[in-house]
Amino acid sequence: MSDFKVPVNDYLFLFNDVLDMQQKYQRVEGGDQATPDMLEAIFTEGAKFCENEVAPLYQSGDDGCQWNQGDVTTPSGFKEAYSKYIESGWPSLTGSQEFGGQGLPTSVSSAFNEMLNTANWAWAMYPGLSEGAVATLEDHGTDEQKSTYLSKLISGVWSGTMCLTEAHCGTDLAQMKTKAVPNEDGSYKINGTKIFISAGEHDLTENIVHIVLAKLPDAPEGTKGISLFIIPKFLPAADGSVGERNGVNCGSIEHKMGIHGNATAVLNFDDATGYLIGSPHSGLSAMFTYMNVARIGTASQGTAAAERSYQGASAYAVERLAMRSISGVKNPEGPADPIVCHPDVRKMLLTQRVIAEGSRAMVCYASQFADLYTSAKTKEEQEYGESRLGFCTPILKGFITEQGVIAANYGVQVFGGHGYIKEWGMEQILRDSRIATIYEGTTGIQALDLIGRKTLMDKFKQLKIFTSEMRQFVMPLLLSTKTSRAMRKYAWKTLKMSLKWRYLALRMALQAKRNKDSVGAGSVDFLMFSGYAFMAYMWMQMAAKAEQKLNSSEGDSRFNQDKLISAEFFFERYLPQSSAHAKTISANLGSLMDMPNSYFADS
Amino acid sequence: MSDFKVPVNDYLFLFNDVLDMQQKYQRVEGGDQATPDMLEAIFTEGAKFCENEVAPLYQSGDDGCQWNQGDVTTPSGFKEAYSKYIESGWPSLTGSQEFGGQGLPTSVSSAFNEMLNTANWAWAMYPGLSEGAVATLEDHGTDEQKSTYLSKLISGVWSGTMCLTEAHCGTDLAQMKTKAVPNEDGSYKINGTKIFISAGEHDLTENIVHIVLAKLPDAPEGTKGISLFIIPKFLPAADGSVGERNGVNCGSIEHKMGIHGNATAVLNFDDATGYLIGSPHSGLSAMFTYMNVARIGTASQGTAAAERSYQGASAYAVERLAMRSISGVKNPEGPADPIVCHPDVRKMLLTQRVIAEGSRAMVCYASQFADLYTSAKTKEEQEYGESRLGFCTPILKGFITEQGVIAANYGVQVFGGHGYIKEWGMEQILRDSRIATIYEGTTGIQALDLIGRKTLMDKFKQLKIFTSEMRQFVMPLLLSTKTSRAMRKYAWKTLKMSLKWRYLALRMALQAKRNKDSVGAGSVDFLMFSGYAFMAYMWMQMAAKAEQKLNSSEGDSRFNQDKLISAEFFFERYLPQSSAHAKTISANLGSLMDMPNSYFADS
Repeated sequence: MSDFKVPVNDYLFLFNDVLDMQQKYQRVEGGDQATPDMLEAIFTEGAKFCENEVAPLYQSGDDGCQWNQGDVTTPSGFKEAYSKYIESGWPSLTGSQEFGGQGLPTSVSSAFNEMLNTANWAWAMYPGLSEGAVATLEDHGTDEQKSTYLSKLISGVWSGTMCLTEAHCGTDLAQMKTKAVPNEDGSYKINGTKIFISAGEHDLTENIVHIVLAKLPDAPEGTKGISLFIIPKFLPAADGSVGERNGVNCGSIEHKMGIHGNATAVLNFDDATGYLIGSPHSGLSAMFTYMNVARIGTASQGTAAAERSYQGASAYAVERLAMRSISGVKNPEGPADPIVCHPDVRKMLLTQRVIAEGSRAMVCYASQFADLYTSAKTKEEQEYGESRLGFCTPILKGFITEQGVIAANYGVQVFGGHGYIKEWGMEQILRDSRIATIYEGTTGIQALDLIGRKTLMDKFKQLKIFTSEMRQFVMPLLLSTKTSRAMRKYAWKTLKMSLKWRYLALRMALQAKRNKDSVGAGSVDFLMFSGYAFMAYMWMQMAAKAEQKLNSSEGDSRFNQDKLISAEFFFERYLPQSSAHAKTISANLGSLMDMPNSYFADS
Repeated sequence: MSDFKVPVNDYLFLFNDVLDMQQKYQRVEGGDQATPDMLEAIFTEGAKFCENEVAPLYQSGDDGCQWNQGDVTTPSGFKEAYSKYIESGWPSLTGSQEFGGQGLPTSVSSAFNEMLNTANWAWAMYPGLSEGAVATLEDHGTDEQKSTYLSKLISGVWSGTMCLTEAHCGTDLAQMKTKAVPNEDGSYKINGTKIFISAGEHDLTENIVHIVLAKLPDAPEGTKGISLFIIPKFLPAADGSVGERNGVNCGSIEHKMGIHGNATAVLNFDDATGYLIGSPHSGLSAMFTYMNVARIGTASQGTAAAERSYQGASAYAVERLAMRSISGVKNPEGPADPIVCHPDVRKMLLTQRVIAEGSRAMVCYASQFADLYTSAKTKEEQEYGESRLGFCTPILKGFITEQGVIAANYGVQVFGGHGYIKEWGMEQILRDSRIATIYEGTTGIQALDLIGRKTLMDKFKQLKIFTSEMRQFVMPLLLSTKTSRAMRKYAWKTLKMSLKWRYLALRMALQAKRNKDSVGAGSVDFLMFSGYAFMAYMWMQMAAKAEQKLNSSEGDSRFNQDKLISAEFFFERYLPQSSAHAKTISANLGSLMDMPNSYFADS
């Protein structure tokens, strides 16, 4: 596989030109630190770390982790890279300054994390999981809990996990069985088994802080009876250092399709000591405030797969010689033309690229709301950020992770037979990308969240805000006589997407009145359509900015030209994918729900 | 993973009811043997063999083959199952009776092979590759070659391979480097290295007969200079038994994404003795006559993935409990409802099922032409079979293998996190299925074959024959007053697909006059659209027959009802997928071809 290069220019284009984050940072605590110079320094240095320390371990990491009597050894080189990572202070970009963090806006670490994810997803999950623990403790921990754990977690000396799933329940946490019984000293005794715990056991840090969902003895039935606990692998000693071993053990690690470098642990809690976070029975809502941020992190796995796979495939396509171009010889000196000359190969590469760049823009766009949600200067702005982020989240997680699998599939295909062989690394990207549509809530769950809680129950409020913003962007382009033909075309297509998006939502609302199952039936198609509409808005903005910079000879003209090429491909050849989703949303429900379960059970 | 059950009823429904193969067998040598009783006996006994001997080795086979100093050991149990396979006479269903075959029509072994493929793809590839060697020798071998090799290959005591690819060329065989130099005794000395040789080395048979492409010293440039050779692993002794070791050695086997149970060999030919098949420099055309049959075999890997994955996922979905149905509790006694109640899960299952059943029908339909091609009683019929098969082949191979990956992806998704874990077997189906869109000609190559040689260069002749047949089927349904509402809807949709298919081909022809690259640019979308149209025709026929049988209380009413349910889903919720392909075919070409290669090379 080719060496990985972080597309630093793309991040700077998005932050400085397309999204004008400087203006947005004025509303955010710590935003004044994120000057253009600072952003460029962080992205450039971050890119070096990703390219030199983490990316080279991507393929070798596929050999996987080793479990031995409860201990887990990570792949060769992972530990050394992690040491460098914490020495350089990378984990603390955004943590609160009180506990040693640098207090930068979330959007900055979100961009850095995407680089890290692309360099080596399985490795990046170790520090990635800690962020969930930090966010949960910052929002819901007591002062004592914060002072015990936060500085250790923010510095990266300790790491964190999130323990939700049990063997019989993942999505449906109401069925959870792990029990917590109060001890006399205010702590709790926890018993149960959690599975699928990413980064659940490893050799990178001196302690692992598990954030665990469990039920108290007097818990109400269902999801309203779930509480949240801190269960450290080693109990903190009085001086804050690592103390006595706690009753949590790694029973085994899973053999998975991909992300072999990250240990997916079965954790057994045998009379483990835990500490309640927040109030009893409110664990799930505490978890969900964290989920919106975590799901954006997972969304970026789609971007990562598309970017990494594109880099590998495009490098191969300009080198590999096969057949002659149908429109005339392109490489007369060679025995054949490079496969990049063949239209179908080009189409696969361009698809990967517009997914990578389009989805990166979507995540960056949404990160402005994450900034407000975590650090707005006023309560109103904080709520505004939360609600806008809440609408974007299921689209990002659901749509981008599916797009990542599509892109990774094309990467394998461009390599032909070699794509199927481990040595080239392309099939690993596909295997790794496949988990992203499952964990942190499957695509189906994201789709129900989007159409249910975030659209119908919201009475279309957030959808209207989003589509109105789209229209406000394109109407001046459509009304001005100076708009170029290309921009007019994109503006028109973007406008149509915004209108159709609202129409489809309305249609689903009407269908739902007749039969509630229609919501579930059309939900994934609605999610996908929403993703294409969102991505169209991003490509519209990127194209307009690139054209403007090109016309005024600002910046790198090659970069701007390339961006316009990609935009043209997106609107002409990729956006039409949305049409099939629009069509099936309105299909009759009988075709899906009328048959008895016996149709599925034994035939 | 659930136990695999062969859907015997579905094969009988296709052969006896939908396609009326009895009538078609009258035109085929050996067709009189394939009576309904014989078919039922073969399918029923074949199913037992698949279910009891081969399917149980599917998951354990994923542990892979072992290479040791040129020898390859297949996974545990493979050898024993192979012994039973040849003892029971399964390999000889269709081989010519002169060499011990049973002389049944190709369609019968095609159906049996699909069962075998579904039971265990990696295992089935060992005998599957032999079929290519048999077909090549039957068509192009000398009498001496036939008598030396055919009975051994048809009985399965020896196996065969097809050796085309070299490290630097797969699709573009003109670049091939393997050399053949004449010996004085009429044999040839072969030197070179072939890669990606499926079943290239193993411990199942006493000899392996490699069919190898190589160049003679006086070969013209390009694909017109390729000759075909037999290179047995052991040279046959005078009495026909295994003699001296030949100069062919397995240098290594590949580490692949999937199909671990099948050894993908690097074969080194060092002064190996080979025997010319057919005349010099005509190797590629000899290979291509075999390719049409082999590609149908590969197509059925898509059907296999869809069927196997559907069986696993549907069994899981009726058992696994999570959440309550949005339209009201369905399982009040349990802690949650089975996930099959959730519309999106249902949609994934139904998609898998209509892919499995629809693609099976497509393969069976095309196998009537394979029968004519291999064993028609007249030359005219043989040519008719060849040309109709030739048109179907790229659609079957290109479309069905892509559909298989889609179906296998859904199988993983239905299982949630468990789908990503090896133990459940669902991710293995996905990994195994992924090779099918690559080998035997990638999807892109199939697409060029379909739009180029089989449509434009054919002046739409075959396309017209196919679409006329579709119209002849649906017009009586549309004109009759007795047609049910459902059948009228399907007939109308099928008619529209046939008209649009021709319109799109015509449009591509017109575009091609302006710019030849437009053919390549739209080719994969055209292939996919063709696949949906073909599949719509199959679902139309299956639905009409199922309705007719249900109305006249013929056969298994449950089976017929289920078929109608699937048809409704196909037309309402799956066929609309074709719309996105139709849209992008006509996209402007600039978005794909205008950019310089530097756009891809280093950004």
